[in-house]
Amino acid sequence: MAARKSTKKATKRPARKGARPRKPARRAAGLGPKPVKTGSGPGPLEVAQAFAALLREGKVHEVEARWLAPGIESVEGVGASMAWSGKKAVLGKYRAWEADHEIHAMEVDGPWVGATGFALRYRIDVTQKSTGQRSAMEEIAVYTVRNGKVAREEFHFRVPAPA
Amino acid sequence: MAARKSTKKATKRPARKGARPRKPARRAAGLGPKPVKTGSGPGPLEVAQAFAALLREGKVHEVEARWLAPGIESVEGVGASMAWSGKKAVLGKYRAWEADHEIHAMEVDGPWVGATGFALRYRIDVTQKSTGQRSAMEEIAVYTVRNGKVAREEFHFRVPAPA
Repeated sequence: MAARKSTKKATKRPARKGARPRKPARRAAGLGPKPVKTGSGPGPLEVAQAFAALLREGKVHEVEARWLAPGIESVEGVGASMAWSGKKAVLGKYRAWEADHEIHAMEVDGPWVGATGFALRYRIDVTQKSTGQRSAMEEIAVYTVRNGKVAREEFHFRVPAPA
Repeated sequence: MAARKSTKKATKRPARKGARPRKPARRAAGLGPKPVKTGSGPGPLEVAQAFAALLREGKVHEVEARWLAPGIESVEGVGASMAWSGKKAVLGKYRAWEADHEIHAMEVDGPWVGATGFALRYRIDVTQKSTGQRSAMEEIAVYTVRNGKVAREEFHFRVPAPA
């Protein structure tokens, strides 16, 4: 699926009137790949591994203190499709969710690491206190790293494959 | 982890000089969540299900023709950290990878659907022709949907959890 090397290609400039047979000219700008950067501080691999290790130890508050950027944006997936902006609003969302849910078991799988961030998969056996409904949640969270912090997160919810 | 409802909070405006005792005022802008939109055309759920169904049928070229935006950006994950811009460059990357790899088996898991896009997990048993090396690749691809097309994709590679 995913190339591991550049696919630089020679392209041609338009022939000028009266020009001799065209020869392969410089590459068109933009066809070759460009490096992806995430600014200063730890990159996606380092953040991903530390973030996942803390979560597996149950150290949610350490994750929040160490890794969430002040301006973090948190996006809830299909069926919600809302974005919370800023650490205060995002922590408020977390606390509200925790207050209304009892977690029986939680599995953190990953990380899978990209160029701008990383992904974790959560499988959670949870009861919503206000409704009494117990369910098996499965989400893939994608975290964007900028300047050594998580600047954005988006939660993707498992949906059934179409028949 | 993920709140399912708003955490709207009342906040206070600064008291004006001589004002009577402050009462809870309108919410501060930005603490409440905002809806996330992806423009016109099919949204992430519809694109995700059609995209995944075509891939499972092996219809890679139909996926490319129907769902990739002309200006798509394709980002390779950790260890590569490069971005290809534009459908021509991205298809060139795909074709170069295919030319150098033999796929023995490929499993497409998902979709998981967010507010701005969706995720799929690929597990591929593959041999790189130029080196003869056979490996088990596992990637999470995250696709961003804008105006009914995939405008961006980023491939995240499974890395070992730290000891």
